[in-house]
Amino acid sequence: MSWNTFGRVLRMTTWGESHGPALGAVVDGCPPGLALSEAEIQPWLDARRPGTSRFTTQRREPDAVRVLSGTFEGQDGIQRTTGTPISLMIENVDQRSKDYSEVAKAYRPGHADYAYDAKYGFRDYRGGGRSSARETAARVAAGAVARLVIPEVRIDAYVVEIGGDAIDRANADLAEIGNNPFWCPDAEAAKRWATLVDEARKAGSSLGAVVECVAHGVPAGWGAPVYAKLDADLAGAMMGINAVKAVEIGDGFEAARLTGEQNADPMRPGDDGPRFEANHAGGIAGGISTGQPVVCRVAFKPTSSILSAVETIDKDGNATEIRTKGRHDPCVGIRGTPVVAAMMALVLADHKLLDRAQCG
Amino acid sequence: MSWNTFGRVLRMTTWGESHGPALGAVVDGCPPGLALSEAEIQPWLDARRPGTSRFTTQRREPDAVRVLSGTFEGQDGIQRTTGTPISLMIENVDQRSKDYSEVAKAYRPGHADYAYDAKYGFRDYRGGGRSSARETAARVAAGAVARLVIPEVRIDAYVVEIGGDAIDRANADLAEIGNNPFWCPDAEAAKRWATLVDEARKAGSSLGAVVECVAHGVPAGWGAPVYAKLDADLAGAMMGINAVKAVEIGDGFEAARLTGEQNADPMRPGDDGPRFEANHAGGIAGGISTGQPVVCRVAFKPTSSILSAVETIDKDGNATEIRTKGRHDPCVGIRGTPVVAAMMALVLADHKLLDRAQCG
Amino acid sequence: MSWNTFGRVLRMTTWGESHGPALGAVVDGCPPGLALSEAEIQPWLDARRPGTSRFTTQRREPDAVRVLSGTFEGQDGIQRTTGTPISLMIENVDQRSKDYSEVAKAYRPGHADYAYDAKYGFRDYRGGGRSSARETAARVAAGAVARLVIPEVRIDAYVVEIGGDAIDRANADLAEIGNNPFWCPDAEAAKRWATLVDEARKAGSSLGAVVECVAHGVPAGWGAPVYAKLDADLAGAMMGINAVKAVEIGDGFEAARLTGEQNADPMRPGDDGPRFEANHAGGIAGGISTGQPVVCRVAFKPTSSILSAVETIDKDGNATEIRTKGRHDPCVGIRGTPVVAAMMALVLADHKLLDRAQCG
Amino acid sequence: MSWNTFGRVLRMTTWGESHGPALGAVVDGCPPGLALSEAEIQPWLDARRPGTSRFTTQRREPDAVRVLSGTFEGQDGIQRTTGTPISLMIENVDQRSKDYSEVAKAYRPGHADYAYDAKYGFRDYRGGGRSSARETAARVAAGAVARLVIPEVRIDAYVVEIGGDAIDRANADLAEIGNNPFWCPDAEAAKRWATLVDEARKAGSSLGAVVECVAHGVPAGWGAPVYAKLDADLAGAMMGINAVKAVEIGDGFEAARLTGEQNADPMRPGDDGPRFEANHAGGIAGGISTGQPVVCRVAFKPTSSILSAVETIDKDGNATEIRTKGRHDPCVGIRGTPVVAAMMALVLADHKLLDRAQCG
Repeated sequence: MSWNTFGRVLRMTTWGESHGPALGAVVDGCPPGLALSEAEIQPWLDARRPGTSRFTTQRREPDAVRVLSGTFEGQDGIQRTTGTPISLMIENVDQRSKDYSEVAKAYRPGHADYAYDAKYGFRDYRGGGRSSARETAARVAAGAVARLVIPEVRIDAYVVEIGGDAIDRANADLAEIGNNPFWCPDAEAAKRWATLVDEARKAGSSLGAVVECVAHGVPAGWGAPVYAKLDADLAGAMMGINAVKAVEIGDGFEAARLTGEQNADPMRPGDDGPRFEANHAGGIAGGISTGQPVVCRVAFKPTSSILSAVETIDKDGNATEIRTKGRHDPCVGIRGTPVVAAMMALVLADHKLLDRAQCG
Repeated sequence: MSWNTFGRVLRMTTWGESHGPALGAVVDGCPPGLALSEAEIQPWLDARRPGTSRFTTQRREPDAVRVLSGTFEGQDGIQRTTGTPISLMIENVDQRSKDYSEVAKAYRPGHADYAYDAKYGFRDYRGGGRSSARETAARVAAGAVARLVIPEVRIDAYVVEIGGDAIDRANADLAEIGNNPFWCPDAEAAKRWATLVDEARKAGSSLGAVVECVAHGVPAGWGAPVYAKLDADLAGAMMGINAVKAVEIGDGFEAARLTGEQNADPMRPGDDGPRFEANHAGGIAGGISTGQPVVCRVAFKPTSSILSAVETIDKDGNATEIRTKGRHDPCVGIRGTPVVAAMMALVLADHKLLDRAQCG
Repeated sequence: MSWNTFGRVLRMTTWGESHGPALGAVVDGCPPGLALSEAEIQPWLDARRPGTSRFTTQRREPDAVRVLSGTFEGQDGIQRTTGTPISLMIENVDQRSKDYSEVAKAYRPGHADYAYDAKYGFRDYRGGGRSSARETAARVAAGAVARLVIPEVRIDAYVVEIGGDAIDRANADLAEIGNNPFWCPDAEAAKRWATLVDEARKAGSSLGAVVECVAHGVPAGWGAPVYAKLDADLAGAMMGINAVKAVEIGDGFEAARLTGEQNADPMRPGDDGPRFEANHAGGIAGGISTGQPVVCRVAFKPTSSILSAVETIDKDGNATEIRTKGRHDPCVGIRGTPVVAAMMALVLADHKLLDRAQCG
Repeated sequence: MSWNTFGRVLRMTTWGESHGPALGAVVDGCPPGLALSEAEIQPWLDARRPGTSRFTTQRREPDAVRVLSGTFEGQDGIQRTTGTPISLMIENVDQRSKDYSEVAKAYRPGHADYAYDAKYGFRDYRGGGRSSARETAARVAAGAVARLVIPEVRIDAYVVEIGGDAIDRANADLAEIGNNPFWCPDAEAAKRWATLVDEARKAGSSLGAVVECVAHGVPAGWGAPVYAKLDADLAGAMMGINAVKAVEIGDGFEAARLTGEQNADPMRPGDDGPRFEANHAGGIAGGISTGQPVVCRVAFKPTSSILSAVETIDKDGNATEIRTKGRHDPCVGIRGTPVVAAMMALVLADHKLLDRAQCG
């Protein structure tokens, strides 16, 4: 079931709309005894926060998280998880008062407007309501809790392509990621993207992006075949992020163009389990982690909100056109990057606990 | 949870190993009153069955399905579902007696051998055990039940690329699919693929493939945001198929290279809901179907079983090498095609019922 | 899974501790279009609220609920559910600052103190933390939402026995329930109970109670055999209420003392479905509602918090004794009555939607 | 969801009808490496098997179980679980060919006939179809697997009352259970019951029963508050058994008649955790096991199938009457006893794994 719940053992239930009073997540199933306070969560939210550069939406949200339950201060003065549900709340602050009458009446192509009305017969049209990417703030907050469950894992997420302009892998350095507003590991590409995204922003247009995410330190054995495979759960998690249209594990589509010989990941004896001589598989075989880095890539479509007029229909089915005014990300993939990382953390933490349940 | 259960309302639980006595599926949550007998299921299994051409494994399995529960013959003499669980069983017939000592001792790269041992400490190594693609016969059988739930939907699945050689869309005709052993809509491509796959087969090598699946007739409104989105569930379903490494919805990765203007799917008034002027979105917006055809594409890696020696380690961690002898599909994507269609049917049927639960 | 989630289609996830900043529930899967505002929920919370008579705890909590998401004001000015998760929050106000050092160190027999420490190694000992009956406020709030889903059903819940003193069924009148602080349908019994509970309260002792709950208007056909039977789900729901130790459906234990002839519920033709001549079954057969009133009875143990010293051990396993000072309900069954009704509403609403999913 | 699936981590999905070709269970989530063959399961099925004395139905079913998947013979020659789903099948043998036309047309009061038709519009009326207690054979088979997961636990289940005639606790000896056909620990009561049940059988009548089940060796810490409490899950599991109408944990209804002082379970220092001086709670506090024996009691109604004519209606709503001929248990509680034990095993095994998931 679980319309708004994600996960099997470590479960996050999110709630909230773009322009309601607040949004939040309830994280259930978290092991007890983990040091957790707002300070552990806030930095991840800050990474996703809007308005931090001119390349993101100018909506100003502090995204300050409150932990409302599930932790308790032990005698050592440290706030720790108690094993009970962790309620996280983020108040909406900058719901700019504006005129929504246009969006209320006509459907923005590429947005969920028409689909929500078709399904529910009714929708909160202010800023996209529940379908707004603002909901992903709750995922990032919950993802911060998930990270505590998997201290052995390091997750890197970065943008490898914007508007069809890819990084040069030979020039990539993860240390660069924090040095530019694009989570870009290639300093040269970051410069080109600044121009590219600026042009799109000024033109009221938008661009797509490809985000790569790698998890190091995942031991062999996570993943539950055959319908809770690690890669299947990752694919579902990533495709569920707003604006995502494709997911690859390891070589992904490229693997379909290799021969069996080229695609093999030979194994040699290693110090601690096998040493793989390649990682076409992206660290997962038969739905179970192999101990290699878990690699996935995610395609974000260009932001659907654009200033150009697009043909559409109104609620009554009449032809009209719509321009999406207001504050928008010219490239949602950028701010989607921390969300990709959060979903990776949630899936891995869930599977760590899931494996513990069955295999001890 | 649900290691071996797929679905939310319409749930399939599969069981069985490649070389055990049988395999099967229990389909639960199926609406009552649907006409169902073995005759409804067998044709779909026959489409996936091995040994039907020289381009697939020569294991000879009749894959004859038995319906053991969940149906009852009404007074009209028609066998119908009763709303109780439908147990489907397929006996394994051609578990060729062979020597598994090599596979028992060494890990086949690209296969789940090492991962299963790392997880469970123990595995049924005969033919891959539970990780064998033979398990997908159960999915196809369950998918045939799912199709009864969604008579309004037509699902087409076909191969669009083998070994990097793509079809010519201009030359594609769905009527061609049944005329060649590749589910190929382009007769010219089918001829080239015959040569390509033959060469790979003779060389003991293997090839990857890309399969496309389109569902026509899906009404607007299926999909449950935000963690049971239709596209997220499809992505998980497809990535969970053996050998799949990537999934796209609509334009997929290509969407990341379009601008917002190019990617828009303008709407015009139509006879019955909106008429969309494009379908970059692949029929899904905000995780909910829009009434357009639902489109996904799936990448299959080349079969991991190849005749060439690959470096590997044995159970004790020592260096060795392995050649995978025996009967194998030179291109698993071919026989994966009916499985893709079955998973599409299962996801759509599940979401139809899920939508009915919440939205009546 | 679902440690803190209840329900299958209509799902409530609750969070919060007795002495944290707030507690709440997220209700997911609710159909769209139902008129819902705080005003629909508050009366039910008021019925459960502490401090309304001398027979309940004197903790003063307004239990004012806020709806933080999931509703939207339509053009008719009415707040309606949108089909997205409904987040309900109740702030804790009267967490009296007191010395918890005794409870922190020693385990109160009958309470969850020892069990929580044994499980989690750590607990929020202030007022019982998550194990406090205060959590049931969230259930009552969510139950108010569930009631909107089943307008065809009327739920009556009332106390039929306190401290072993039962009502006289011949003297019972549901109209009396609101006239006394015990939800007692027998005015005479209510008078006796006033004395009984007063004595227990003054003595620092406590009493048990039996609550009966009847749902009228449930149509035939709700319940999903064989592991989501309506009676099984009710039993789980009721037994999960704090201090509940037993659940009966229909005649319950008494049915075990009847013969098959005595226990039969003969059917006669009725105006609208069958007319049953008895209801030993409590409205459920084979786990499915029959159209008769659904009847269950629930036993509450006496409040575990008593003023008398009880032998116990401290965290280090040493012998000690404990008296539970502070504000407590002398008979938790009284305030448990609206909780029983809320759980009945949640189970029925869930099964209405569940039935709709499978049977249309 | 999970109409026909029971459990959270250790999940059993059962299928099959009384008069179909077979019935079975798929047990998923079982830890790998446990020694399991038919020989581990068959004795439990034999205990439940019909036709073993004149006090049970004379239907002759060998109830021979087959393990179709999920185990593999290791190099030590022992069949062990592999962590994959375990498919168990029991063929129906003695589906006596008889005339079902009466049952097909009229509804047997107390049976699920009318409810199934009201829900599904259609039913397999042969022997009750899916609603037959024959389905519990699958639970007993799955319960045998569950027992392997909890070797530290010993489960005793026995009948304490038939037709209102209770055992004398002072005269009870668990060693007696196997010495009479009633699972009765009191030899004197067993003699009286022989007469009682014989009379009922000869009169074509039936009797109810109360079954008690005690699990020894459950450690403190199993149970997941607040909606997967151990007692709530037990209550749901027990109430879901055919013919069960009530469930008590510990003192159950009697607890509602005690004062807080009487109901306390004082703790003293023990060798290995606390030593409790009483067990009114039945081994569970706050939904979590305390390390004391887990105690529950279950009330079975008298078998609904009786030879006397009972007023009923037919499918078209017309008045008629029905006598239930054929082979029936005069007291279903007797054969229900191994089912109660099986459900106890399933719940405890599930919670052991569930606890391991969250608390390591």
